[in-house]
Amino acid sequence: METTGVWLIGARGSVAVTSVVGALTLRAGLAEPLGCVTELPELSSPAVPGLADLTFGGHDVSDLTLDKKAESLVAAGVLPSRAAEAVGAELAAVQRELRPVPEAGTQLGVARLIAADIDDFRRRRNLERVVVINVSSTEPAVAPHPAHQRLGLLDEALAGPDRVLPPSSLYAYAAFTADCSYVDFTPSTGARLPALAELAARHGSPYAGHDGKTGETLVKSVLAPMFAMRHLRVRTWSGTNLLGGGDGANLADPDTNAAKAGSKQRVLAETLGYQPQGSSHIEYVDDIGDFKTAWDLITFSGFLGTPMRMEFSWHGCDSALAAPLVLDLARLTAAAHAAGRSGPLTDLAFFFKDPIGDVPHALPDQWAALVAFVRGLHAPS
Amino acid sequence: METTGVWLIGARGSVAVTSVVGALTLRAGLAEPLGCVTELPELSSPAVPGLADLTFGGHDVSDLTLDKKAESLVAAGVLPSRAAEAVGAELAAVQRELRPVPEAGTQLGVARLIAADIDDFRRRRNLERVVVINVSSTEPAVAPHPAHQRLGLLDEALAGPDRVLPPSSLYAYAAFTADCSYVDFTPSTGARLPALAELAARHGSPYAGHDGKTGETLVKSVLAPMFAMRHLRVRTWSGTNLLGGGDGANLADPDTNAAKAGSKQRVLAETLGYQPQGSSHIEYVDDIGDFKTAWDLITFSGFLGTPMRMEFSWHGCDSALAAPLVLDLARLTAAAHAAGRSGPLTDLAFFFKDPIGDVPHALPDQWAALVAFVRGLHAPS
Amino acid sequence: METTGVWLIGARGSVAVTSVVGALTLRAGLAEPLGCVTELPELSSPAVPGLADLTFGGHDVSDLTLDKKAESLVAAGVLPSRAAEAVGAELAAVQRELRPVPEAGTQLGVARLIAADIDDFRRRRNLERVVVINVSSTEPAVAPHPAHQRLGLLDEALAGPDRVLPPSSLYAYAAFTADCSYVDFTPSTGARLPALAELAARHGSPYAGHDGKTGETLVKSVLAPMFAMRHLRVRTWSGTNLLGGGDGANLADPDTNAAKAGSKQRVLAETLGYQPQGSSHIEYVDDIGDFKTAWDLITFSGFLGTPMRMEFSWHGCDSALAAPLVLDLARLTAAAHAAGRSGPLTDLAFFFKDPIGDVPHALPDQWAALVAFVRGLHAPS
Amino acid sequence: METTGVWLIGARGSVAVTSVVGALTLRAGLAEPLGCVTELPELSSPAVPGLADLTFGGHDVSDLTLDKKAESLVAAGVLPSRAAEAVGAELAAVQRELRPVPEAGTQLGVARLIAADIDDFRRRRNLERVVVINVSSTEPAVAPHPAHQRLGLLDEALAGPDRVLPPSSLYAYAAFTADCSYVDFTPSTGARLPALAELAARHGSPYAGHDGKTGETLVKSVLAPMFAMRHLRVRTWSGTNLLGGGDGANLADPDTNAAKAGSKQRVLAETLGYQPQGSSHIEYVDDIGDFKTAWDLITFSGFLGTPMRMEFSWHGCDSALAAPLVLDLARLTAAAHAAGRSGPLTDLAFFFKDPIGDVPHALPDQWAALVAFVRGLHAPS
Ligand SMILES: NC(=O)c1ccc[n+]([C@@H]2O[C@H](COP(=O)([O-])OP(=O)(O)OC[C@H]3O[C@@H](n4cnc5c(N)ncnc54)[C@H](O)[C@@H]3O)[C@@H](O)[C@H]2O)c1
Ligand SMILES: NC(=O)c1ccc[n+]([C@@H]2O[C@H](COP(=O)([O-])OP(=O)(O)OC[C@H]3O[C@@H](n4cnc5c(N)ncnc54)[C@H](O)[C@@H]3O)[C@@H](O)[C@H]2O)c1
Ligand SMILES: NC(=O)c1ccc[n+]([C@@H]2O[C@H](COP(=O)([O-])OP(=O)(O)OC[C@H]3O[C@@H](n4cnc5c(N)ncnc54)[C@H](O)[C@@H]3O)[C@@H](O)[C@H]2O)c1
Ligand SMILES: NC(=O)c1ccc[n+]([C@@H]2O[C@H](COP(=O)([O-])OP(=O)(O)OC[C@H]3O[C@@H](n4cnc5c(N)ncnc54)[C@H](O)[C@@H]3O)[C@@H](O)[C@H]2O)c1
Ligand code: NA
Ligand code: NA
Repeated sequence: METTGVWLIGARGSVAVTSVVGALTLRAGLAEPLGCVTELPELSSPAVPGLADLTFGGHDVSDLTLDKKAESLVAAGVLPSRAAEAVGAELAAVQRELRPVPEAGTQLGVARLIAADIDDFRRRRNLERVVVINVSSTEPAVAPHPAHQRLGLLDEALAGPDRVLPPSSLYAYAAFTADCSYVDFTPSTGARLPALAELAARHGSPYAGHDGKTGETLVKSVLAPMFAMRHLRVRTWSGTNLLGGGDGANLADPDTNAAKAGSKQRVLAETLGYQPQGSSHIEYVDDIGDFKTAWDLITFSGFLGTPMRMEFSWHGCDSALAAPLVLDLARLTAAAHAAGRSGPLTDLAFFFKDPIGDVPHALPDQWAALVAFVRGLHAPS
Repeated sequence: METTGVWLIGARGSVAVTSVVGALTLRAGLAEPLGCVTELPELSSPAVPGLADLTFGGHDVSDLTLDKKAESLVAAGVLPSRAAEAVGAELAAVQRELRPVPEAGTQLGVARLIAADIDDFRRRRNLERVVVINVSSTEPAVAPHPAHQRLGLLDEALAGPDRVLPPSSLYAYAAFTADCSYVDFTPSTGARLPALAELAARHGSPYAGHDGKTGETLVKSVLAPMFAMRHLRVRTWSGTNLLGGGDGANLADPDTNAAKAGSKQRVLAETLGYQPQGSSHIEYVDDIGDFKTAWDLITFSGFLGTPMRMEFSWHGCDSALAAPLVLDLARLTAAAHAAGRSGPLTDLAFFFKDPIGDVPHALPDQWAALVAFVRGLHAPS
Repeated sequence: METTGVWLIGARGSVAVTSVVGALTLRAGLAEPLGCVTELPELSSPAVPGLADLTFGGHDVSDLTLDKKAESLVAAGVLPSRAAEAVGAELAAVQRELRPVPEAGTQLGVARLIAADIDDFRRRRNLERVVVINVSSTEPAVAPHPAHQRLGLLDEALAGPDRVLPPSSLYAYAAFTADCSYVDFTPSTGARLPALAELAARHGSPYAGHDGKTGETLVKSVLAPMFAMRHLRVRTWSGTNLLGGGDGANLADPDTNAAKAGSKQRVLAETLGYQPQGSSHIEYVDDIGDFKTAWDLITFSGFLGTPMRMEFSWHGCDSALAAPLVLDLARLTAAAHAAGRSGPLTDLAFFFKDPIGDVPHALPDQWAALVAFVRGLHAPS
Repeated sequence: METTGVWLIGARGSVAVTSVVGALTLRAGLAEPLGCVTELPELSSPAVPGLADLTFGGHDVSDLTLDKKAESLVAAGVLPSRAAEAVGAELAAVQRELRPVPEAGTQLGVARLIAADIDDFRRRRNLERVVVINVSSTEPAVAPHPAHQRLGLLDEALAGPDRVLPPSSLYAYAAFTADCSYVDFTPSTGARLPALAELAARHGSPYAGHDGKTGETLVKSVLAPMFAMRHLRVRTWSGTNLLGGGDGANLADPDTNAAKAGSKQRVLAETLGYQPQGSSHIEYVDDIGDFKTAWDLITFSGFLGTPMRMEFSWHGCDSALAAPLVLDLARLTAAAHAAGRSGPLTDLAFFFKDPIGDVPHALPDQWAALVAFVRGLHAPS
């Protein structure tokens, strides 16, 4: 099959390196593809590129080497030491495909250099197409700007001196101009601006997002529908998330935090039809590292108002939950691109905390949409 | 609309009395129909009798009065005191429809008397049809007997001196001979014998079962599919159920317990495709009363085998979870009977821990089947 | 025995009314004295006034009647309905002893009126002595003022137009000038100012505080010493407190909250000898009411650094935990006063989250101090 | 200082090997002595031998090599790989001191050969004294035998053909005859027979036991006193212990299990003064391995009977919790022996689930006794 490029924004971060080491390990037959949804029989399809068909590259502002990062992920219990050792040589090869974030006088200049880096990668590695995936640090919410509304205004503004777009959106801009598809695995703005939707349409580029659904929200997306189907009234749903690591430190910032905490409760209103009391609280605890602990309390009323409650705690390794989804999204988005789809891939809502579009938020409904989507790609058109 | 009779086996027990007081309270407009699935918009249908269309009666071996039982349910926090007071007069009326379990020389004799009691009820109250619902104490597993296999053999054996059928099955036998439908809300044998399937077919009677899905198993039926959809390998699923009350004391008996614990793990094998380690343990703790506490530990492996875990604890009021389902089952089974359905109602799997037939065990799939079932009843035939 | 007056600041609040109804109920022999530490055999002493020797009065800014408040506490499950009904008449009598908070042109004027109210109560009810107990709403932290440092300066400043003292401290000032003892059950400033220590000494008044230890901190005060005694290194201790009610709404205010959250972690540093990572987070959830839910995650390292963890969740009724301690404190402080003790009663650290003085924070050590204190009171002097 | 021998029964098991590797690692300065109680300043004493003064040997029925066992403990996350590698040579030296369990025609013959093995060890390694510590598999409860009551009868019976003593007691017999002290870290019978007390007295041998207190019981021994000190009535205390490993498999056996579960609840009756409802349940889950998960539910009544509850879950590494205690017990028992103590060391109750003698069960009281014990050893006699 044709090879597919995966261009990672934040390529030296935990999620990115876990994804790359994992793909290399699976390709070498050293582990089962656990966590990889696309490897389930229900989603098996000749239209979807295989794990072995992926070629990695990317941008990062840091210059940490991939082997150092992999080492620290081994020490943290995220990667098995065996795996990291076995794929050392291929990891070094991926490292040669990484580029620093380019600099220029205007954001338009930067976007062109980003696009050029991606284009070089495509030609150098002889790739049929490239999926750009944002797995860089979460940005603070962005201030509205008139140029976000229309592509014409945006092109003009980018050529000026102001920082009109946040980095995630500038990467999306560059990805579309380079005829690539784009996935935002983070809660950042990314492609969620009317001007960028216009650009994607013009280039026939599909895109997906936002914010990989890995832990507490995943559980919510099955428990909340359970309460709804049983006509049980949820009164309070209150969550605490303790997490460390780079992402944790970043989310401890109240601005960034607010965005994420909001998107974590949205699933409740969407699946229950009302918003219960309580909030979702994120706390940075360095010692916890990548093994997030979330605790949720749910109080609810049953028959004749009888009060009941449920609690759960979730101890998940965030990068290990995220990485296989990054690989799934790369494969599915590339397949959609190959099949001629463009615009928002709302059928990929299964993967996201805060999915684009007016889509179901209950996991089983998202699963059904995903299965239909994959079958649709396969069907002879 | 025509009125529907609900004949409760174990009519003086916690589930039965909570169901009856609840129905009367809802009918009086004193509470919202929380917990009643049939009251959700998705299941609204002119084919389904309303709560106000139900008339109650039943058998019990005990002679505890309904108001005494209601009082103890108020003290235990299961029923709101307001509700129990408001419906006192109607409750006394229901009590007049209760009958002691008849006695006779042979099981056939008993069955005929049971059927006669039900038939009297139908004529006296001028009911279109009656649903017999077993909410009596769980029985120990029954020893196999050749007469269970064929109706001819069974009729013959019942006329003899031996106790061929356990009570739950004898009630099913009587229900069918009286042209009623039958629901088994308990884990007991009930209608699950080939000879009884023959009898139900002959009388055109529908039936449903087994074992109302109220607590830990309900949660399992959404969490286990979540792990499956995410390709996460569940290694251990170990549960502890602490419960008091009459049902708790009964389930503390190792024989009865074994049956229930088994059916609680079945959902895992069915939805995951393999059986994880661990078991489901039931412990009787008198002080806990009707407010069951269940704790489950789930360990699972993700990407590259990374070990993770989840715990939940569930504090549910068992009778308050069961009662609205009993009302739902009465209404849906009566509607199916009216629509000419007979045999096992596999589309009601949503309500049961151990559903009859080769049906889905994931709650969302059971929900979809239920919605389709109700829509099918409604369609002009 | 001589009768002891208990003058409650915040006398119409949840803790106060639970204390009063409880004392009346116990006096009537309608319940066991659960939660009352002074009723344990180890603390039994002729030097300590009995429950039946307490006479209640108090101030409150609200004019909610005690029976209305008791009713709402019954509805919330804090008080048994039986109890509240049985003591209705005595509760009405207590209500006649309540006074609105006096007003005057200067804080000195207010203090004199407060003292006069208390003095009237003492003479009217023929009381030997009165303990003033602050169970009013928690105040925000107070700004430092030079007059807090010396009694001379304070007397002068109070006579001027400024609000020099927060209410809790003004009540302490009034209590001491009326020759009463004073207990601060809240985290507010109360008697914790050098000028007030001077005043207490001059009047021979004992005082105790701060912040009743009822829930999560109580558990911490036994678990943290366990880790210390076992030489296990606590890495993270992170707590979430969900609570509703009047106190909850008040603590949701970030200023007030910060003070309380700080005092909740102090026990860790004091008993472990170092401060682990993590914080104690308070969240207001109206629906939770008075039944607080706290969840704590503790990660720790054992032999050769092996990482381990513990979690607990605590579902306690805050007012029901606080009320018996208020009664205990009234009795013990009155006994100390009678025995001629004055100044800070550091031996009552057992009862407080943030005890006055350089005292042990491990519960068993506090218990030992308390037992010795009671024995000391009893000893013939 | 003189060197102290530590003779481990079950020397190739998880607890033994973790203890030995740990002692070697600490001696090499490669880790902090976390978990080692004797290393706390409060217990520091010149009378207690240092970690570096311990020399290891032992018996085991298995012939698994120590490096293989250490490897599997590394894989299970019990031992850090670094540690196991660094002490490889010294571990091989310890292995040369291990002996198979001797065989002979009578139990007396076996006891003599065991004693001879220990005596050889003492002379070969030039040891001042030897502590024999039982860390072998838990035995089923033993049937009573008249010879258990008097040493004269026991000596006679051992010379006959019957198996009069269970292995743990036969090791104690051998230890005493070899003038050694003896510690039983397991729930087995060990030295708990009148005849063996006689033998210990005759040889001036001290002994300690039973059953190392490492997890759930440790927590109980601080939480139960907390409820008692607060006069809160514990209604239910129900525990579930999920554990794998060799010990887990063994405890899954109902006979063995019963003994252990019983001793786990005793602390409640002893510290509360009554036995709450509920039991402690042990379940074998292979996948859990050495990282035990315990969950406990505690329901209790407070002021006026208000019902409340607490839950905790404990995820501890059993061998890592046990090993430092084994080292502590070796050092303290040797010190007691050196100081001329003989008979049951009831002051070591701190370390045991089921301590010998009529001793306190609250951890803080046991701690106080331990501190006094160590100070007493130190005092010039
Ligand atoms: N791990 C999960 O479960 C999960 C789930 C949902 C979303 N996410 C999101 O994935 C993202 C990555 O998480 P992580 O744990 O790998 O974080 P990380 O901190 O380990 O990695 C982020 C990387 O992005 C790089 N970076 C920062 N700004 C950049 C820029 N402007 N251009 C290029 N690179 C830049 C950083 O140098 C770093 O290497 C976060 O936004 C996180 O919120 C993670
Ligand atoms: N409450 C739940 O959440 C739930 C869920 C699933 C299944 N169930 C099942 O529902 C049943 C009832 O539970 P409950 O809590 O009401 O128990 P319960 O003990 O309160 O009531 C059982 C009643 O059945 C009566 N009975 C016993 N044998 C009888 C017989 N042979 N004929 C007629 N009556 C008889 C008893 O006298 C009693 O009144 C149990 O089998 C239980 O396992 C309950
Ligand atoms: N319940 C617990 O477990 C617990 C534990 C520790 C401390 N406390 C403290 O006890 C206090 C009372 O708690 P609560 O739950 O009863 O709160 P609440 O809100 O029910 O009652 C407080 C009462 O104080 C009154 N008040 C407010 N300002 C006043 C003033 N200046 N003078 C006189 N009265 C005033 C209010 O009108 C109200 O009636 C709080 O400060 C709380 O932090 C409670
Ligand atoms: N780990 C803990 O937290 C903990 C706490 C309290 C008590 N204990 C007790 O410590 C003991 C050891 O636990 P473990 O996890 O190391 O078990 P394990 O199964 O790993 O080791 C037991 C060892 O004893 C050996 N053995 C069995 N019978 C023997 C005999 N007759 N003579 C000599 N050796 C014999 C076995 O071959 C094995 O090597 C158990 O009895 C356990 O109940 C452990
Ligand atoms: Na947990
Ligand atoms: Na819980």
